[in-house]
Amino acid sequence: MEWLIDMVLSSDLLTGILDEVRPLLGQGKVANYIPALAHVPADRLGIAVYTVAGELFSAGDATEPFSIQSISKVLSLTLALTLYQEEEIWRRVGKEPSGQPFNSLVQLEFEQGIPRNPFINAGALVVSDLLETRLTAPRQRTLELARRLAGNPSIMADQVVARSEYQYSARNAAIAYLMKSYGNIENDVDKLLQSYFNACAIRMSCVDLARAFIYLANRGVPLGDPSPLLPARTTKQVNALLATCGLYDEAGDFAYRVGMPGKSGVGGGIVALIPGELCVCVWSPELNPAGNSLAGTAALELLADRLGRSIF
Amino acid sequence: MEWLIDMVLSSDLLTGILDEVRPLLGQGKVANYIPALAHVPADRLGIAVYTVAGELFSAGDATEPFSIQSISKVLSLTLALTLYQEEEIWRRVGKEPSGQPFNSLVQLEFEQGIPRNPFINAGALVVSDLLETRLTAPRQRTLELARRLAGNPSIMADQVVARSEYQYSARNAAIAYLMKSYGNIENDVDKLLQSYFNACAIRMSCVDLARAFIYLANRGVPLGDPSPLLPARTTKQVNALLATCGLYDEAGDFAYRVGMPGKSGVGGGIVALIPGELCVCVWSPELNPAGNSLAGTAALELLADRLGRSIF
Amino acid sequence: MEWLIDMVLSSDLLTGILDEVRPLLGQGKVANYIPALAHVPADRLGIAVYTVAGELFSAGDATEPFSIQSISKVLSLTLALTLYQEEEIWRRVGKEPSGQPFNSLVQLEFEQGIPRNPFINAGALVVSDLLETRLTAPRQRTLELARRLAGNPSIMADQVVARSEYQYSARNAAIAYLMKSYGNIENDVDKLLQSYFNACAIRMSCVDLARAFIYLANRGVPLGDPSPLLPARTTKQVNALLATCGLYDEAGDFAYRVGMPGKSGVGGGIVALIPGELCVCVWSPELNPAGNSLAGTAALELLADRLGRSIF
Amino acid sequence: MEWLIDMVLSSDLLTGILDEVRPLLGQGKVANYIPALAHVPADRLGIAVYTVAGELFSAGDATEPFSIQSISKVLSLTLALTLYQEEEIWRRVGKEPSGQPFNSLVQLEFEQGIPRNPFINAGALVVSDLLETRLTAPRQRTLELARRLAGNPSIMADQVVARSEYQYSARNAAIAYLMKSYGNIENDVDKLLQSYFNACAIRMSCVDLARAFIYLANRGVPLGDPSPLLPARTTKQVNALLATCGLYDEAGDFAYRVGMPGKSGVGGGIVALIPGELCVCVWSPELNPAGNSLAGTAALELLADRLGRSIF
Repeated sequence: MEWLIDMVLSSDLLTGILDEVRPLLGQGKVANYIPALAHVPADRLGIAVYTVAGELFSAGDATEPFSIQSISKVLSLTLALTLYQEEEIWRRVGKEPSGQPFNSLVQLEFEQGIPRNPFINAGALVVSDLLETRLTAPRQRTLELARRLAGNPSIMADQVVARSEYQYSARNAAIAYLMKSYGNIENDVDKLLQSYFNACAIRMSCVDLARAFIYLANRGVPLGDPSPLLPARTTKQVNALLATCGLYDEAGDFAYRVGMPGKSGVGGGIVALIPGELCVCVWSPELNPAGNSLAGTAALELLADRLGRSIF
Repeated sequence: MEWLIDMVLSSDLLTGILDEVRPLLGQGKVANYIPALAHVPADRLGIAVYTVAGELFSAGDATEPFSIQSISKVLSLTLALTLYQEEEIWRRVGKEPSGQPFNSLVQLEFEQGIPRNPFINAGALVVSDLLETRLTAPRQRTLELARRLAGNPSIMADQVVARSEYQYSARNAAIAYLMKSYGNIENDVDKLLQSYFNACAIRMSCVDLARAFIYLANRGVPLGDPSPLLPARTTKQVNALLATCGLYDEAGDFAYRVGMPGKSGVGGGIVALIPGELCVCVWSPELNPAGNSLAGTAALELLADRLGRSIF
Repeated sequence: MEWLIDMVLSSDLLTGILDEVRPLLGQGKVANYIPALAHVPADRLGIAVYTVAGELFSAGDATEPFSIQSISKVLSLTLALTLYQEEEIWRRVGKEPSGQPFNSLVQLEFEQGIPRNPFINAGALVVSDLLETRLTAPRQRTLELARRLAGNPSIMADQVVARSEYQYSARNAAIAYLMKSYGNIENDVDKLLQSYFNACAIRMSCVDLARAFIYLANRGVPLGDPSPLLPARTTKQVNALLATCGLYDEAGDFAYRVGMPGKSGVGGGIVALIPGELCVCVWSPELNPAGNSLAGTAALELLADRLGRSIF
Repeated sequence: MEWLIDMVLSSDLLTGILDEVRPLLGQGKVANYIPALAHVPADRLGIAVYTVAGELFSAGDATEPFSIQSISKVLSLTLALTLYQEEEIWRRVGKEPSGQPFNSLVQLEFEQGIPRNPFINAGALVVSDLLETRLTAPRQRTLELARRLAGNPSIMADQVVARSEYQYSARNAAIAYLMKSYGNIENDVDKLLQSYFNACAIRMSCVDLARAFIYLANRGVPLGDPSPLLPARTTKQVNALLATCGLYDEAGDFAYRVGMPGKSGVGGGIVALIPGELCVCVWSPELNPAGNSLAGTAALELLADRLGRSIF
């Protein structure tokens, strides 16, 4: 009944979508909470799609690396899911949307130091704490995972960005210490913040990211690697979390407009996917007021529309 | 690659699932905030599945009508979507998960009388207000829609339950008046509450509900009625809202465990669906602490597992 | 060591104070949440002081009646204290500052329908509910108390204002219904709101109010009436409540600047007192952002300074 | 009209009061959030009163030093008031009661890092930050002030308590970092916490404290030192802050029952005063649920009653 997605997808289709959303450039705001991010050229625009069959389509600045920022939270959670029993994770971090800005402390205090989900800062810090406890070199392992999944050994964390984040880390420190006061952080806060910012500072391109996260669309199996990274059931669960919590306080609107599980970062990247079909990454540094890429979200909405595909 | 769902589905499969979750009976709590609901026999357990092809499978107390309660919010929203431009609705009610109990006033005050989504009480009251403004007999029209979609003209609203709700309606009155104070309620609060409670008091069976909501799995087209109730695009959007906001403050956990858009009611019913495939309704009156049917959620989790199907 | 206050006080002193604060006129905002209040001439300015010895000093528009609004909350509480055991009141309303705007529902929900103190709207509605339960004609009795204490039988409630308040009463209705949902309102909400607004709509002048509340400075004994209205101990307690909760979310600043227990109303009146010495009422309709009379507060600060008197 | 307080006050009166409240011992809870405090003997009970004329009355364990904890916040604020212009302080910390637990982060986030008053932890950390900026050895200076005011050079900070506090300081660190994220902390958080805990760990007896804080009852003039520590006007303002904010979230109840400006600490001490008359310190380590000395508050209530004195 439904046409094969590979027959519709083409780099021309993607180029057309970028052309359509390009007029939005100038209407958002590049993240400027740290100087190192504020310098990113605002006019970049790229998109890349990998199908589960391994075909790649791309357009625009699809091979230019950018700061993945919160998209790293998916990598970290995935890594934690390979190291811990499911329940060990979910008793320390919830699975519900927050209904609050990504860095609010209010809910965290009401809920006694248990963050709502692993994709808000508080939750990601708990995941970092889990990694810190079980791994001797968590930063290196997260980076290696990114490289392996993207098939790109040149991926690096930008130390200027990582240090800049660390210098402006007072709010994340507040979040971590508040959780520590409730007994939900085991390791040294300072060390934790450095690991966390290092993961955020990893630089990857749209092509890198679309390839790296194809396992989420492929029952846990990465591209070019027959052994699953995550079991199929766990993969579905991660997708469920992305669908309800992956876009800060705009998950509902993103589901409504785009209809794919996804994760955004303040670097302007958004990764999204259709299970069984494809993984897409779009990049445009200017953000909307909710902190998600303005043109990026519009591009994904068009893509879902043109493909006639969403999870709904 | 994937087997056809009709070949796996059978009433035996459903019976087996009910048997597996039956031991949960006794571990939840029947809603007792109004006397009329507290009398529902706690041991009822039913399930019904309609496929988009129109096949019906059921087990247990699948034909016994129960109070649909908040499931009516989907009917009301659908009705409103047939009467208003999309934007007219979404400027008065949001599309984001609330991260709060279904009847909290806190967020409503912070967000100046704009409820987070149409499936919490505040949002449903705004939808009722929209219906009140455009329809001369909103109660009758909602009931007619339920009858028509379920193909069951005997469906009625339970006036004892409606009156009982109204007698214990102080919190919903508080919510409505708070929104009125922000200019987000146009009609008389009292009249509104009566319409709202009347919709909640509609009694339908699992079979009724699975059939009634098949349009959500079928691009907006109801069973046995070629003309769409909603456009395909709008239908997807409703599903997106259900996936992120349909289960009170447990949408994330439901997505994680079941992986289908759904809507629950404190009468113990849950409707869920897989786009393009099926609509299922399960009923068991005992609720978990989040207000969702305890055994019902477990049954849906098993169903998703046995079918190997979810939206993720 | 300290001079006698009567030797310093004079109508000239008061006239001088008014002249000093008059330049503030034009810098505040007349309450305009109901049309009937928005029409008050913004340039009115009056002050009256009664000493416990019964001497009266006044200046400016001291005999012009204005809407006492929240100042009526002190009358209502006093009336309730003559009808109930202390504990019967304080188990339904607290004695703590709210740290929130006067009409917020947030704290009320967190604290399960028990308002923080009797001088925020929620608390005053509970006090009205107490009066409603014990009195057959609470409105008339409150008015009579005002007349008796002020020695002025012509005091009336402004029915235009009362009706106007009632028409715009959605938020107070929300507050009352929320408390009712927690079981902390016994009577019909509608009837309650009418009584409450009627008390707020009482019109008194500075001279009326300074005389009416002299009992708070005089161990509970009204002027020209040897029998105490309240016991001395209860009177001190009311003063303590006024000092910590009498000026909305500006009680601390008022204590800091003026140093007297006091109560303000959005009609622009403020009553304040020094136990054992005097009761003062000032009136200027323009309010500061916290809802307290801008010039009025400044005049009281000057008065405290000139007299060299405060409770601290 | 009123009897002279010196004729009523006597050590016998104080002994009688302690006897009356002694049955309360065993009904509260010694602070145990740090091990070093949990070891304080629960049965200690002492009281000391200094009059502005320099007379001392005492009873019970009045000369046994204890951890002054939050009472140090008054010393720190006083020191800051000698170093800064008034406005320099009040633009970084408010003057309003908080209506929240003493260590909540919720209000701090809503109010963008400006703490409600200098007597909650957040406010005291801002005051410490002010001292850190202007003084080279703030810890030593605070200790010297305590010694000088109490006329007792042997006063020390308990380093075991200070270190213990620091080890369990996650929540205070969270508070400090949150304020730093809003730009309201200038110095290194770690250094700040150490200074703050050092001041809290100062050990003084009831006699020490009653003498040290007599300047608050004496227009800013310490005992045996003709030169004022604070101007009379500033002293009144500090008293106003104590009256509205000095007892955590129980300032209203304390005003209602005791009617004196005061400051409590989790070590079980409470200092209170009547301007122009006396300063009293009571000590009993067991706390009520609001964190204030249970027997201590009762003793102060009796004292106010027996003396027939309060500020109201």
